[in-house]
Amino acid sequence: MRFTLEHSCTGSKARAATLETDHGTIETPIFMPVGTQGTVKAVEQRELYEIGAQIILANTYHLALRPGTDLLTEAGGLHRFMNWEKPILTDSGGYQVFSLSELRKIEHDGVTFQSHIDGSYHRFTPERVLDIQRTIGSDIMMILDECPPAACGYDYARRSGELTLEWAAQARIWLEKTAPLYGHRQFAFGIVQGNVFEDLRERSARGLMDLGFDGYAIGGLAVGEPAEVMYRMTDFTTDILPQDRPRYLMGVGTPLNIVESIARGIDMFDCVMPTRNGRNAMVFTPDGPLTIKKERYLHEFIPIDDACGCYACQHFTRAYVSNLFRTREILGLQLASLHNLAFYLRLTRDARNAIFQDTFPSWKDAFVRRYLGKGTHESSTIE
Amino acid sequence: MRFTLEHSCTGSKARAATLETDHGTIETPIFMPVGTQGTVKAVEQRELYEIGAQIILANTYHLALRPGTDLLTEAGGLHRFMNWEKPILTDSGGYQVFSLSELRKIEHDGVTFQSHIDGSYHRFTPERVLDIQRTIGSDIMMILDECPPAACGYDYARRSGELTLEWAAQARIWLEKTAPLYGHRQFAFGIVQGNVFEDLRERSARGLMDLGFDGYAIGGLAVGEPAEVMYRMTDFTTDILPQDRPRYLMGVGTPLNIVESIARGIDMFDCVMPTRNGRNAMVFTPDGPLTIKKERYLHEFIPIDDACGCYACQHFTRAYVSNLFRTREILGLQLASLHNLAFYLRLTRDARNAIFQDTFPSWKDAFVRRYLGKGTHESSTIE
Repeated sequence: MRFTLEHSCTGSKARAATLETDHGTIETPIFMPVGTQGTVKAVEQRELYEIGAQIILANTYHLALRPGTDLLTEAGGLHRFMNWEKPILTDSGGYQVFSLSELRKIEHDGVTFQSHIDGSYHRFTPERVLDIQRTIGSDIMMILDECPPAACGYDYARRSGELTLEWAAQARIWLEKTAPLYGHRQFAFGIVQGNVFEDLRERSARGLMDLGFDGYAIGGLAVGEPAEVMYRMTDFTTDILPQDRPRYLMGVGTPLNIVESIARGIDMFDCVMPTRNGRNAMVFTPDGPLTIKKERYLHEFIPIDDACGCYACQHFTRAYVSNLFRTREILGLQLASLHNLAFYLRLTRDARNAIFQDTFPSWKDAFVRRYLGKGTHESSTIE
Repeated sequence: MRFTLEHSCTGSKARAATLETDHGTIETPIFMPVGTQGTVKAVEQRELYEIGAQIILANTYHLALRPGTDLLTEAGGLHRFMNWEKPILTDSGGYQVFSLSELRKIEHDGVTFQSHIDGSYHRFTPERVLDIQRTIGSDIMMILDECPPAACGYDYARRSGELTLEWAAQARIWLEKTAPLYGHRQFAFGIVQGNVFEDLRERSARGLMDLGFDGYAIGGLAVGEPAEVMYRMTDFTTDILPQDRPRYLMGVGTPLNIVESIARGIDMFDCVMPTRNGRNAMVFTPDGPLTIKKERYLHEFIPIDDACGCYACQHFTRAYVSNLFRTREILGLQLASLHNLAFYLRLTRDARNAIFQDTFPSWKDAFVRRYLGKGTHESSTIE
């Protein structure tokens, strides 16, 4: 994978880079909209292009259950199935196995679990999740990891980290034995675990680096720990990870989490927050998030965010969007999701520009100050 | 209202016309997408322009309850509130009072009812529904009518028809006493009632014509009677209505209902079917409707309708849309609604072209034959 570090911001660990895939070049820092089941909820593919999405996420666990690998093969992979021409990253499904599935049994060489949809039994091994991702045809595949809860304790975290590292070694071997199915390259990222313990994070990171992956994700954060702990772990881990590989902080986060993590050397982000919170009537603005459904917004005949170029902000008022939510209209979900993704994508684009101008620290401070100044304050980490 | 009869098809009552409003000219026959609460469900305004929508419907009853007339005044009318630049027709709310509201009491000069949302009491009079429509600023306003159920019997239908005619007379007077609020003209249509009885339909039509309206709607059909009865009533009524005024068949209907009614001299249609059925995974094709959610469509890597130019058909397969519905994704509702509206708009556009070419009868026969030939057959009237 060609990763080009274009600029490191003076006085900060923030960095701007490009990541080349056969479906296009990704400019980092970047936010990746989440399209779990092969669709970013309530947003059309053409709208994702329109707001500058460069890469989207899909989920191995969900796609393996529905539509399943046979159908994905029949379709010629996910890009063709969902008609998405840009890069796709697939999560390994590890997180979903440990958060969604009904029953699971972790063994040395994999995990057996019951589908959250119909209770059917499935088995994920490091090899199997790569096979599924070969079938999906994602540009970036994630290896299988175990993702323990925030307060699992040191001993559990240590054993879990060991297991994840063993799985990573198995995955590394399997990557060499298998090949892409659709004529485009597929890269693989390792996932650093280790919970809130620096020694475990270091051990995990160094173990993965010894195996050698195209990029490194930091997993097991934003799972309930305080934001400060997340920042400390991120900062600690990016000091260990190689400069010449992309770094992806999984499942993060709020706009504040994102700018703080860019400051700590992260390149890539994904989070359901812009779409999920959008569907729950929370819209993001530079002055903080608003619960647009509230009656007061019925009387505001201004855009959600007047600096935003998205279709929602260019054409509709807070009053109209508020009424859409109050009358439970689907267009409300569409406009709020679209705007929130546009907001996140603008955020990472602005961060990138500030990095090039060596003004990232002051840009970040100004963003944070304004964001916290007004509006319904977000909690400091995602719920 | 400038209504120009452009062409009457040889050997048929089908006709092509234009209807001029201050928000643009409408080419008939035309289907009007239903945007009850100031949004066509799951479809963006720009998408309505894209598929050739020329006029949309909104509903007086719903808009009066939410967001209410105060807010509509504050917004400067519905066009501005929802940012829709083309014409809007508003139903009077009569149908909703008689189908949705909890409790209603019909009196000589109006109807008192309880909101289906919060049980609050409201009163609609012929004057009040026009006042509300002035506040909405619709290009075409409908007068208040009582809409009895299909099997109400002759006596009820007669008394109801008399009441509706009295209300129309009150409305006619009120129209002269009030004026548009936003600088564009507002036209008013009378509504022919009379249930399934020819003498009552004739009495209603002639009574309204004596009062003189900009156009005439046929109401109280598609409420449960057999399609043949609906066609007979339509045919009978259009023979009475003046040639030089638009005719609107309210709440109709299936694609077959629409072509059969165009053949009987109708110019305008509205129906929730394309959007409501779309949200329930029914998509229209020239070979009849499909329940796209069915497993068989998961394996069809062709568009819903290969002759359709809509975004859904130009970019996605039946397989993908089927999977969206099977995984309960909002994008499924969006694509099915968009396609179905595009299908209906193409239908009335094709009908109009056939009228100009004097081939409407054979075009209609070919359409009906193909539509009934394959696919999941629709019932002959709407449910």
